[in-house]
Amino acid sequence: MIRFECDYAEGAHPKVLELMNKTNMEQTAGYGMDEYCQKAERMIKDICNYENLDVHFLMGGTQANKTVIASILKPYQGVVCVDTGHINVHETGAVEATGHKVLAVPGHDGKMSASQIREIYRNHVGDENHEHIVQPGMVYISNPTECGTIYKKKELSEIYEACKNYGLPLFIDGARLGYGLASSENDITMEDMARMCDVFYIGGTKQGALFGEAVVIMNDALKKNFRYMMKQEGAMLAKGRLLGIQFAALLENNLYFELSKKADRLAMEIKEAFLDKGYELFVESDTNQQFPILPHRIMAALGVDYAFCFWEKVDEGHSAVRFCTSWATKEEDVKQLIEDIPEK
Amino acid sequence: MIRFECDYAEGAHPKVLELMNKTNMEQTAGYGMDEYCQKAERMIKDICNYENLDVHFLMGGTQANKTVIASILKPYQGVVCVDTGHINVHETGAVEATGHKVLAVPGHDGKMSASQIREIYRNHVGDENHEHIVQPGMVYISNPTECGTIYKKKELSEIYEACKNYGLPLFIDGARLGYGLASSENDITMEDMARMCDVFYIGGTKQGALFGEAVVIMNDALKKNFRYMMKQEGAMLAKGRLLGIQFAALLENNLYFELSKKADRLAMEIKEAFLDKGYELFVESDTNQQFPILPHRIMAALGVDYAFCFWEKVDEGHSAVRFCTSWATKEEDVKQLIEDIPEK
Amino acid sequence: MIRFECDYAEGAHPKVLELMNKTNMEQTAGYGMDEYCQKAERMIKDICNYENLDVHFLMGGTQANKTVIASILKPYQGVVCVDTGHINVHETGAVEATGHKVLAVPGHDGKMSASQIREIYRNHVGDENHEHIVQPGMVYISNPTECGTIYKKKELSEIYEACKNYGLPLFIDGARLGYGLASSENDITMEDMARMCDVFYIGGTKQGALFGEAVVIMNDALKKNFRYMMKQEGAMLAKGRLLGIQFAALLENNLYFELSKKADRLAMEIKEAFLDKGYELFVESDTNQQFPILPHRIMAALGVDYAFCFWEKVDEGHSAVRFCTSWATKEEDVKQLIEDIPEK
Amino acid sequence: MIRFECDYAEGAHPKVLELMNKTNMEQTAGYGMDEYCQKAERMIKDICNYENLDVHFLMGGTQANKTVIASILKPYQGVVCVDTGHINVHETGAVEATGHKVLAVPGHDGKMSASQIREIYRNHVGDENHEHIVQPGMVYISNPTECGTIYKKKELSEIYEACKNYGLPLFIDGARLGYGLASSENDITMEDMARMCDVFYIGGTKQGALFGEAVVIMNDALKKNFRYMMKQEGAMLAKGRLLGIQFAALLENNLYFELSKKADRLAMEIKEAFLDKGYELFVESDTNQQFPILPHRIMAALGVDYAFCFWEKVDEGHSAVRFCTSWATKEEDVKQLIEDIPEK
Repeated sequence: MIRFECDYAEGAHPKVLELMNKTNMEQTAGYGMDEYCQKAERMIKDICNYENLDVHFLMGGTQANKTVIASILKPYQGVVCVDTGHINVHETGAVEATGHKVLAVPGHDGKMSASQIREIYRNHVGDENHEHIVQPGMVYISNPTECGTIYKKKELSEIYEACKNYGLPLFIDGARLGYGLASSENDITMEDMARMCDVFYIGGTKQGALFGEAVVIMNDALKKNFRYMMKQEGAMLAKGRLLGIQFAALLENNLYFELSKKADRLAMEIKEAFLDKGYELFVESDTNQQFPILPHRIMAALGVDYAFCFWEKVDEGHSAVRFCTSWATKEEDVKQLIEDIPEK
Repeated sequence: MIRFECDYAEGAHPKVLELMNKTNMEQTAGYGMDEYCQKAERMIKDICNYENLDVHFLMGGTQANKTVIASILKPYQGVVCVDTGHINVHETGAVEATGHKVLAVPGHDGKMSASQIREIYRNHVGDENHEHIVQPGMVYISNPTECGTIYKKKELSEIYEACKNYGLPLFIDGARLGYGLASSENDITMEDMARMCDVFYIGGTKQGALFGEAVVIMNDALKKNFRYMMKQEGAMLAKGRLLGIQFAALLENNLYFELSKKADRLAMEIKEAFLDKGYELFVESDTNQQFPILPHRIMAALGVDYAFCFWEKVDEGHSAVRFCTSWATKEEDVKQLIEDIPEK
Repeated sequence: MIRFECDYAEGAHPKVLELMNKTNMEQTAGYGMDEYCQKAERMIKDICNYENLDVHFLMGGTQANKTVIASILKPYQGVVCVDTGHINVHETGAVEATGHKVLAVPGHDGKMSASQIREIYRNHVGDENHEHIVQPGMVYISNPTECGTIYKKKELSEIYEACKNYGLPLFIDGARLGYGLASSENDITMEDMARMCDVFYIGGTKQGALFGEAVVIMNDALKKNFRYMMKQEGAMLAKGRLLGIQFAALLENNLYFELSKKADRLAMEIKEAFLDKGYELFVESDTNQQFPILPHRIMAALGVDYAFCFWEKVDEGHSAVRFCTSWATKEEDVKQLIEDIPEK
Repeated sequence: MIRFECDYAEGAHPKVLELMNKTNMEQTAGYGMDEYCQKAERMIKDICNYENLDVHFLMGGTQANKTVIASILKPYQGVVCVDTGHINVHETGAVEATGHKVLAVPGHDGKMSASQIREIYRNHVGDENHEHIVQPGMVYISNPTECGTIYKKKELSEIYEACKNYGLPLFIDGARLGYGLASSENDITMEDMARMCDVFYIGGTKQGALFGEAVVIMNDALKKNFRYMMKQEGAMLAKGRLLGIQFAALLENNLYFELSKKADRLAMEIKEAFLDKGYELFVESDTNQQFPILPHRIMAALGVDYAFCFWEKVDEGHSAVRFCTSWATKEEDVKQLIEDIPEK
């Protein structure tokens, strides 16, 4: 069985483990107050070419999302999100558990548009009894999205403009950020990321770390006491250095982006193969997640040797499925898959 | 200005005030442990012809909704509701503030169908990683709905059947219950109410009381410690007898239903008048809320002498509006309105 | 049975009911946006001689406490309170239900001192890992306290000074505010109240209203969007005018304070009677709650004709009990009680 | 600088890293559904000699505490805990953030007694208006406690008996469980643990793992849907196998308990050294945390070469401090410390 069903099936990139092994018996301060976290923070500032930002290392995506969102919203505020957004559908109500509504708007291939932000804000303000309605308090998008699509610089710029107009902090979930930025279609840089939102995170779990997400806060108003929020959410790792170590290893010599680029290249090969053999795509993605539409009998046939995800039923005879590549995907596995995809 | 914009513009029916005045200087136990609350509970048991139920008197609809829902759900569960449901759109996230997601399904004129319950439940159970998704924990409907529509006995029966099949308690918001049961199209009785859901409430605020909703719990599993929930939610009135007194006055001699019947009759006259003069209805309602679609210039003209609600824009030139009657609506005001509605 | 066990056993002062009856069939806007609420707000500004304050009318004490506190604190902050404080012991965890810890400090006859605020703040800041500890975010006191004691102007001034030094908003629960300000030992005025804290409330429920507490906010930073908080907490009465009407009636011609003064006078008579007959007091109170220590056999004997509260066991043979007077207490009932207290 | 200030200053025991390295490139299912988690669960069942238990692997202590507690309590319930308990003082209100009050009782050297459970339960039930007071819903103790003390089998047995009498689930925080069970004074076994509480956890973070706590649930009523709770709390690690791998490595060949035993032995040597040189102990501990009382000048002197924790001021000239040993403590470091402790 060759596995393409997710991007977190293996452990960590060898460089990550190497540094973890090497530093194992060092004694450091706990809770992220160590030199490795400082080093990784320094590297992130450099990559972003942005001094005045705070970095906090959390353990996973749901944790990062709920901690950031709960730190920003007032009790009567909600977070604007597309309907397919991870916080809306795949976190067991983690945001609601902190007391806040997720204000879902229809996504276009997983993406939000600036006009939707304008609309939800104006509808709210324009409502006579707006105190009876949850107030939009911030905007959450992911880049890449759950559907593998990415925001173009112009789109992101318009979104951030709308957010600033209405005083809504913009938070970007970057669980797969590397795969987005490394895409051939991408025109956004890390420098842009730090200038086009208020807070975002650099995903580690799906990008070559054992676990970990680096939350990066630019907006001064959102920085204060974030560590209290982390502790309360159970999101402050005792041996916090493990997170600093992993990000330091991944960011060294551009490894993070090299790994992402390779994963994207292999994903493109898979996409091309499906297209060549006559299949359609459920959504046009240029990152590490690919969504071909398969007849059910071919799903079954391919499923014997390959693991991939069921995504959504398209019609009686067809479903969209997801193939993921990752930092760990082997060239030969992709080659084998391509050979094994039958003509439609 | 004659007001039809809501059903809570006046104080209380004179019989309510009379009993409140008469009992004013009596000394009673606090927090709903008095003889008036007992009396009203007794009357509700009799009307429902159902002995084994608990009655609790709360102050308003949002309070009743959030207290009942929070008392039923486990932390990882959500409440199934139509998209137009009051808890989903007009309670400032009160349910989410208790930690729970509102699982919205598309309403049909404000109503849910049994098949939607089946679908949301089966989708959840059928999902491979269902622990990543909020679990449906109960179903909330309102009767009449926010759109003035009512459930037929057969529809409610199917809904309750589906709920019981999946172990989902059914909660009916009856903020306007009287106007629903008194409707000429209704085939549900109070006896049915007590047998076709797990918990519901009898609205007072919009039905002739100064304030108050009588929560009625049939399901034994939901009864325990409900008073703790009330106290925690700030929903236990110190002089709780005020609620018992009001419901006792309203339920005496069928007053509650007589008032409802009259309000519905006047609403039908308004509906007929709009239809006769050539207008269309946004939704077909047989209760005290009516939703004609008006050209904007007629909205403006009628708005000079009459207060009514903007409901929803229909197209560039037309909007749906809402006219409400209530226990307090005067016959002559309705007559005057009918005269003043211009031909379309 | 003559009842002295609480100050909310009756309905409302006749003047309150009178205005409610008189205005009953008027049509007004809902949710507190009516002229009666405006009038009562105006009266409160005048009594406080303070223009720049906001007034919101809520239904009860627990509701007022949880709504105000949840509107002020950040998720990782707690509210400093004496151990006997109402929010710490008698609200079924309403504050915790909004996500916040009550940081209890030992009370002295129900009172907090400025030095305790300094201490809890400095201990927090001084702690090496203070992010692991709930941050003090505001201070809650009640005046009078649960024990009937009152703050002197000097004490309150020191407390407020400490609060301002540490950036902690001061919130005063005034459920029995009238009985405090009317006490012969009191040196605080309504003008002082508005200048010596950030937010407080004027109790109605225990002071002659059917129900209701008038929350008064001076601190600009705490005013914004308070109505959203109210709605979310189920604390926005549909017929909000009922609250405006009650406070307008009570504040007319100083009635509120006259009623309080009389209640305090009768309480002093009861206190003197117990002292004269040889009993000791559990706590020295100069307001409407009195706490004599009774031998158990006398508790039993007095309990035949009089209702009063058990407060706390003092030793094997004695307990402290509570006698309350109120706006509704009758002179002849007090006279009778005094006669019936046996010599110790 | 030799560090004795905590038991989580290093990474993980080499055996843990070894297995992590060895399995790194394997592809497994996510979220704890892998064979390593199954293996570790199997080992825990064997060690406990108890088949019918569920094991869940979480990332840290605060996370484990809040997830378990929130999964058990109803909204109006609180968790009984000693005042020094970790959840009461060092988790930034994590339990309160889930809506629940921590009901603190005075600890005796960090321990609770069965009589305190009886008392808090009876006081609650006996209170006339008990619905106004948070209901005790479960009991939380830690073994060893924050003060290094341990429960004797008889004490734990009495506590569990009291809990069962009152229907209160007992939850034992075992962040340092190994150091407790390995103590020469301990008479409790892993088999006992599984039979003398409803749920407990086996600490990993402080016991040789990089991170991780193994939550063990015996009580059937507490098992259902625990994974939903984990996901909602951000406590479900994507690469969950990392936790299974670590516990499998630690539990192999009794390593977990061997490491604990060594740490305890070194702690005893430190204790003896302080006693021999004339110091008193703040609390009598037989586990890996030791609390000598030092004159401030000696604190300063020792602090030059050794890191240890300030614990509590004892008087003007003295403070209690904490020295921790751990699985990673070196014999030579302890020897050096003992030599360097000056005579008092």
